[in-house]
Amino acid sequence: MRLVLVQNKPLLGQVSKNLAAVRALVGETPFDLLVLPELFATGYYFNNRDQVDRLSEEVPGGPTTIFLQELAASRGGFVCGGLVERSGGQLYNSALLVGPEGVLTVYRKLHLFFEEQLWFAAGDQPPAVHDLGFARVGLMICYDWRFPEVARGLALQGAQLLLHPANLVQPYCQEAMITRCLENGLFAATANRVGIDTKLDGEQLQFTGRSQVIAPDGQRLCSAAVHEPQILAVDIDPAQADDKQVTPYNHLLADRRPEHYQVLLDNR
Amino acid sequence: MRLVLVQNKPLLGQVSKNLAAVRALVGETPFDLLVLPELFATGYYFNNRDQVDRLSEEVPGGPTTIFLQELAASRGGFVCGGLVERSGGQLYNSALLVGPEGVLTVYRKLHLFFEEQLWFAAGDQPPAVHDLGFARVGLMICYDWRFPEVARGLALQGAQLLLHPANLVQPYCQEAMITRCLENGLFAATANRVGIDTKLDGEQLQFTGRSQVIAPDGQRLCSAAVHEPQILAVDIDPAQADDKQVTPYNHLLADRRPEHYQVLLDNR
Repeated sequence: MRLVLVQNKPLLGQVSKNLAAVRALVGETPFDLLVLPELFATGYYFNNRDQVDRLSEEVPGGPTTIFLQELAASRGGFVCGGLVERSGGQLYNSALLVGPEGVLTVYRKLHLFFEEQLWFAAGDQPPAVHDLGFARVGLMICYDWRFPEVARGLALQGAQLLLHPANLVQPYCQEAMITRCLENGLFAATANRVGIDTKLDGEQLQFTGRSQVIAPDGQRLCSAAVHEPQILAVDIDPAQADDKQVTPYNHLLADRRPEHYQVLLDNR
Repeated sequence: MRLVLVQNKPLLGQVSKNLAAVRALVGETPFDLLVLPELFATGYYFNNRDQVDRLSEEVPGGPTTIFLQELAASRGGFVCGGLVERSGGQLYNSALLVGPEGVLTVYRKLHLFFEEQLWFAAGDQPPAVHDLGFARVGLMICYDWRFPEVARGLALQGAQLLLHPANLVQPYCQEAMITRCLENGLFAATANRVGIDTKLDGEQLQFTGRSQVIAPDGQRLCSAAVHEPQILAVDIDPAQADDKQVTPYNHLLADRRPEHYQVLLDNR
């Protein structure tokens, strides 16, 4: 399958400009599955709840969802990307997975980073796996990387490929995703953004780029620039992730000892 | 506290020579806590069950346990290291934690690598945390690194420092331990060995050295050579691991969503 990542440079709050820039960046690049960053159409470093509310949309029906649907339908592929979702009076930092026939699922970020906790409600459903026919994929968003339970839970449900829209500001994740792939024996596609968001009070966040695809053996198959918008394309065979046998004696998942893991479910 | 790691180069099956070499390597180096590799007195790449059985010992009473006890008692410190443990007709790949007053605990490796599965029974107890007064420590052995549940379980029980005797032959662990520290906000001391074990049939395993201590922020505080026996010494403040607040909004453990992690305990 042809996996394509978009690393864009959104302007805070300028949805139509950002969608047009992504459309231009994608161009006629062929893909089976396209992954866009977290909040790729809105930017990230919001000023206040009113701004987040204005940029939010119900799913389906809003401009970002429509954009993703049109992209998927016109190209006959699948598209994953992040948006501010409004539902039942709450705002969520969500990622959509959209196919040629429409929205397949909405994943609401389970682990909220930094000021996201001021605007968003945390996700209310465990991560789930979706079978696209050519790949079984699981969604996680940005800071979810730091919680090994997310990638592990998706691997245990059969995920071959993690779709990982991100807006990374710390330097750790791109290396840590190698560990996520090694421990679970799967692929991971991290679509990060570049550029700087500046709030009205002058506070800034700089995003770290380096979007990447990691293979089940920990190899970095491709990696984008630190500062520039970019498209990454790579052909992968998701079935490689079905081989969890890392030695003749060792199977990454069968070797687990869940009877000794009870502490992981305790609330602390 | 002064944390010291021993990276030795054992000769397969030559326990008394190996213990003497470790004694010489440690010399008069002061330590509060000394960490030795997995199976540091026996070597690793055994020829057959008879050999493993001959090299095994009950705890307490055997030569490796006595060596560790004498080292701890004579220096007034704590010592951790690996041995072939015999108990109830089974052999275990175990690590001892010994203090000036004697053996504090035996940890039996939960996740057995490669041909270990031919000789050893897997551990029968979840990893536990031990309070040394100046540090709360948790034991894990070598390949346990690949299972995020181990370090996570120890962190949830309050571990500030992972003691990680190892006999690493793959190139992944030294980087992955950075992820283990970042995701759990604790220190990790990996004491690895160097050299090559050669079996009677000529099969060889080369060990990767690079023993190291990683801090809760992912920094590598010290790192040993690839091929040479070596002592590493570093002063750390274990209380740094009690601060899990990585942003004003984010606490590494409190941010977890265990109500959505049920799949981690399923047997698959």
